[in-house]
Amino acid sequence: MLADMTKSFGSDNHSGTHPAIMRAIIDANTGDAVAYGADPWTERATAELRRLAGADGEVFLVLNGSGANVLGLGLLLGRHEAVICAESAHINTDECGSSERILGTKLLTVPAPDGKLTPDLIASRLSGRGDDHFAQPGVLAITQATEFGTCYSLAELRQIHDFCAANGLRVFMDGARLANAVAHLGCTLAELAEHTDVLSFGGTKNGAMGVEALIVMRSGDAVNVPYLRKQHMQLSSKMRFLAAQFIALLEDDLWLRNARHANAMASRLAAGLIGVPGVEVVYPVESDAVFARLDPRHIEELRRDWTFHVWDETASVVRWMTAFDTAESDVDDFLDGIKAAAGSLPV
Amino acid sequence: MLADMTKSFGSDNHSGTHPAIMRAIIDANTGDAVAYGADPWTERATAELRRLAGADGEVFLVLNGSGANVLGLGLLLGRHEAVICAESAHINTDECGSSERILGTKLLTVPAPDGKLTPDLIASRLSGRGDDHFAQPGVLAITQATEFGTCYSLAELRQIHDFCAANGLRVFMDGARLANAVAHLGCTLAELAEHTDVLSFGGTKNGAMGVEALIVMRSGDAVNVPYLRKQHMQLSSKMRFLAAQFIALLEDDLWLRNARHANAMASRLAAGLIGVPGVEVVYPVESDAVFARLDPRHIEELRRDWTFHVWDETASVVRWMTAFDTAESDVDDFLDGIKAAAGSLPV
Amino acid sequence: MLADMTKSFGSDNHSGTHPAIMRAIIDANTGDAVAYGADPWTERATAELRRLAGADGEVFLVLNGSGANVLGLGLLLGRHEAVICAESAHINTDECGSSERILGTKLLTVPAPDGKLTPDLIASRLSGRGDDHFAQPGVLAITQATEFGTCYSLAELRQIHDFCAANGLRVFMDGARLANAVAHLGCTLAELAEHTDVLSFGGTKNGAMGVEALIVMRSGDAVNVPYLRKQHMQLSSKMRFLAAQFIALLEDDLWLRNARHANAMASRLAAGLIGVPGVEVVYPVESDAVFARLDPRHIEELRRDWTFHVWDETASVVRWMTAFDTAESDVDDFLDGIKAAAGSLPV
Amino acid sequence: MLADMTKSFGSDNHSGTHPAIMRAIIDANTGDAVAYGADPWTERATAELRRLAGADGEVFLVLNGSGANVLGLGLLLGRHEAVICAESAHINTDECGSSERILGTKLLTVPAPDGKLTPDLIASRLSGRGDDHFAQPGVLAITQATEFGTCYSLAELRQIHDFCAANGLRVFMDGARLANAVAHLGCTLAELAEHTDVLSFGGTKNGAMGVEALIVMRSGDAVNVPYLRKQHMQLSSKMRFLAAQFIALLEDDLWLRNARHANAMASRLAAGLIGVPGVEVVYPVESDAVFARLDPRHIEELRRDWTFHVWDETASVVRWMTAFDTAESDVDDFLDGIKAAAGSLPV
Repeated sequence: MLADMTKSFGSDNHSGTHPAIMRAIIDANTGDAVAYGADPWTERATAELRRLAGADGEVFLVLNGSGANVLGLGLLLGRHEAVICAESAHINTDECGSSERILGTKLLTVPAPDGKLTPDLIASRLSGRGDDHFAQPGVLAITQATEFGTCYSLAELRQIHDFCAANGLRVFMDGARLANAVAHLGCTLAELAEHTDVLSFGGTKNGAMGVEALIVMRSGDAVNVPYLRKQHMQLSSKMRFLAAQFIALLEDDLWLRNARHANAMASRLAAGLIGVPGVEVVYPVESDAVFARLDPRHIEELRRDWTFHVWDETASVVRWMTAFDTAESDVDDFLDGIKAAAGSLPV
Repeated sequence: MLADMTKSFGSDNHSGTHPAIMRAIIDANTGDAVAYGADPWTERATAELRRLAGADGEVFLVLNGSGANVLGLGLLLGRHEAVICAESAHINTDECGSSERILGTKLLTVPAPDGKLTPDLIASRLSGRGDDHFAQPGVLAITQATEFGTCYSLAELRQIHDFCAANGLRVFMDGARLANAVAHLGCTLAELAEHTDVLSFGGTKNGAMGVEALIVMRSGDAVNVPYLRKQHMQLSSKMRFLAAQFIALLEDDLWLRNARHANAMASRLAAGLIGVPGVEVVYPVESDAVFARLDPRHIEELRRDWTFHVWDETASVVRWMTAFDTAESDVDDFLDGIKAAAGSLPV
Repeated sequence: MLADMTKSFGSDNHSGTHPAIMRAIIDANTGDAVAYGADPWTERATAELRRLAGADGEVFLVLNGSGANVLGLGLLLGRHEAVICAESAHINTDECGSSERILGTKLLTVPAPDGKLTPDLIASRLSGRGDDHFAQPGVLAITQATEFGTCYSLAELRQIHDFCAANGLRVFMDGARLANAVAHLGCTLAELAEHTDVLSFGGTKNGAMGVEALIVMRSGDAVNVPYLRKQHMQLSSKMRFLAAQFIALLEDDLWLRNARHANAMASRLAAGLIGVPGVEVVYPVESDAVFARLDPRHIEELRRDWTFHVWDETASVVRWMTAFDTAESDVDDFLDGIKAAAGSLPV
Repeated sequence: MLADMTKSFGSDNHSGTHPAIMRAIIDANTGDAVAYGADPWTERATAELRRLAGADGEVFLVLNGSGANVLGLGLLLGRHEAVICAESAHINTDECGSSERILGTKLLTVPAPDGKLTPDLIASRLSGRGDDHFAQPGVLAITQATEFGTCYSLAELRQIHDFCAANGLRVFMDGARLANAVAHLGCTLAELAEHTDVLSFGGTKNGAMGVEALIVMRSGDAVNVPYLRKQHMQLSSKMRFLAAQFIALLEDDLWLRNARHANAMASRLAAGLIGVPGVEVVYPVESDAVFARLDPRHIEELRRDWTFHVWDETASVVRWMTAFDTAESDVDDFLDGIKAAAGSLPV
């Protein structure tokens, strides 16, 4: 546990496991079950996820977010193909080069304001197609919600998907915070999923102990996933304990309730910052993250009592994350702390 | 759960989670914790494992057995090197080619009676060294207990380790059932570990929900493991829930008690088979597995009521596994079933 | 050059470049040409090869035999798939694990008498299909002529191809000595090629300075080869000098004449060995290789004056290769040497 | 050959083979030679290159530039490590993602004015070191002469090398046009090589038919290169024909004379452009390349009669390359053409 016992604003994975999910795990611990997913929990969880996403294909449970991303890209990529993604994409900046290492693929990155790509930005990486000296993009990877906490609208996604379809690119969506995006957009998961070929649905940051779902929209794309999942070391033996987490998340829309709450807490935080001198919110707050710029000395002061990441040291920008278990009082206390810190020094 | 509710003899991963381990998981679900292993549970679990193994290096928690194997091999292998292993090794037969796929390495396999390699068998794959046309072995991979349920003695391990040291091979031990081997040998973990460079210590088959430890004996070998673990998609964000499982396993030697019990149940099963006509135990029973040859029709009959694997269809050999939660009465019921099936048809 | 100036029986790549091929290279050295294959020599060579093989697809020139093998396998293999091949296959024994390293694939090897696979032998590696724990074979790799100098008949190839088609396996043929096989079978290249999906056609061992052709039988399979060839570092910039070699080889069937001659020299050698005491030819002589078993002391004696490989030290088997430039007198001198050596010691 | 028979300014690899090199190839075609480099030509060529570079390590001949780059990076890179390079680096832009594909490494690119990196630019990619979420740079890759035809001075190289040594980075130099850089700097090869750990020395663009040397400066780094070269499909069987090319290049400093001539022709071209309205040379001309900006319509006009690359369509920048066989009259004719084109339309 964290020493000071104040709520962490460091990440939505600093939280523990939601009680209902823990209960489902405990309930699944009954007798024997065939390993590697041939159990009724897995059957139920994947069937429900498939339905929720409106997928014709299949759903595969994996062990973590990088596992979902690399598997999702791997099933779509031809052996020689490259991936187009935003420079800020998690697969580019936060996975230690896992996509290159495991898939041997090149990431063709694009600087993207607010973390969001557009057809024009994507088009900027298509110039060398057909020339065997140049990396050949085969997949577009987008993140929803993005690494900056922003969300693509359904219209933006449709536009991107249409552009990709017309240009021979398949669409992978990193949905580590997919629930937060659905909550923000007020749409269904299916409305969002239909603009992708494959997407991940993150459980862990949404209150689970540790599980992600990879949703393959079309059945033809799913055929080889079991083998790739095994090769990628993402096949769990006692799978029922992964599946139980998603069963709990889907029950009574816990996934959506968790996401809505986390989003609301981020909005409360952002709202409370309005008018605080020396604190500038730098991206639209559309999920569970608030990015803010403040004086480095104020950041230093604030970090004495609170846990969060300095996102960009040069730009003096920090990231404050909320979670399913962030209380209103946590936000209010943190706001008090921010105000105190921001006023603590002559600027 | 399994339909017939009889105890599965299919695998030690058909069992659920040991209650003490589940309790530890629940207890770890308190407040926030920094993600990716910078938490006190992980610190405690890895420190205790390090001590138990007598390792100068470091311990890394990973998500499953293939993850431990591929990471363990990867940290030892030079970029161009190959692995010597038994033909029956899990990395060769049961991981869908994960080592080749993730590490780009070649497995130089050796047929090994009882699943155990010897210096002579290892030497049989060293002939092409120094010739750039031939794959260059750099690592020996052995399994303890082996895939056939047999165990290397400490003397055998010392001999292998000495041979490898003299021949420029490093030793990786796949310890998916390490606890069973320690229980069988009556030695300490450290006495076994000292004959390796890197070994995995399986939690999952020993009663955990899903966690394995990779123990790197020398600190120099551990330097790059964090990056490889991340690239291999084996870094868990809410790591405390992995660590808590090992904390529980190590408390009051639960790992050893679980293993001793499972081993005892396999011995009970084997003992009960003595004199049963038409059932031949084909390997020494030295851990939690009994391999037996019986008439295909008897196998078919027995599978109506019981869950287990046909190991080798051609040779008509089956594998019966026990686990931490196999009761004496389960074994006795199963023995009754075997006897009934074996006597069910005119042979 | 070799010290003793006697003809080498070590390998068909100990020979230099055929004079007509050298002449073609010199002739191609005229003025400028666009690099990387967009030149008239490459257009002509690949068009002629395509026609000769009866291919609907395309032909790609590469730099050496391993390059052709790995590229040929890579274009056929799904990302997760494995290769079935003979234990004696060059890709398994002589390329330092290049297929595993570059493609991340597993080689599922089969012991094969005379180096030749059969439907039954292939079927022996198909048992784990559909189970995500087992490597999934997607390609069969055969060698023609084999590493033991034997040749598949057209009937055998048809049988294998039919079996593979019926079992979802694609067929790659390593044709490092393809010309020798065509010469032996007395068929056309097209009659042989039609039983494969992709095959290599070796120029180097057939008298070229250094070039191999990869023939892709169906156009759909050829689409991504340019990118894979570049990634595999097999794209030559001054490609005209590769193409010129094949143009010379195809002119007036030089490739076939070279192969016929080399085969004839091997047959002459084998014929001369009949009745020589202590020398046993161990494989049918169907190309340019003679494998023989003789006393280790006789081998040692013979190696003082002649260059050749000891193929299998344990079995005391040597390999004697002929080439396009082996003279009848070379064979006769060598026969004299063999007889002298074989009679040199009391056996 | 090119249709219009005017000298190509498209690339230094549009030229053929220098007559002295062709002569050496022909001379090497005498009798048999042991394959794969165990021949006297290879011994001589590598020994002379080793001496010329002042290397304690070893020299390896490979088949092309990508082959040299990927092998050079591969021998230096730890399995988990990334490469820092300029955004404009050939390995990043022109090799179809070969480094990512073959080595599984990530390229951490830096925008670099004139194609040249500096300690400050390199430092900009070092921020995530020690954090297992971030790619860990282990090697710096620089190009000499750069892709823009500029050269690092010896002082700049020393500064970079010192910075890298102090920061745990090893230095690889892509020397596809190394000779041009040596010619420009007026230094010895050794003076340049000493600031690297591994460098390639390009023969092909310097007048060879097709060969590159990889120079490993320290013997410890060279140990595993033979196996990596074989795995990378860069081991030539009839190696003498590669070696002969370097023997000819080194004789009477042909490599340096060729480079000086090509550089002089580029300087002549640049000099002739001074004062030509509408043509702006955009990089210092320090090797055999002239980059110029001119009106797109003038480019179109000029391409009717001349062969060259449009380097950057957006910026309307072209690349004009000279070669060992570019005559003064070729340059003068081309200058006439440029002037005519640049004056051909009202701007």
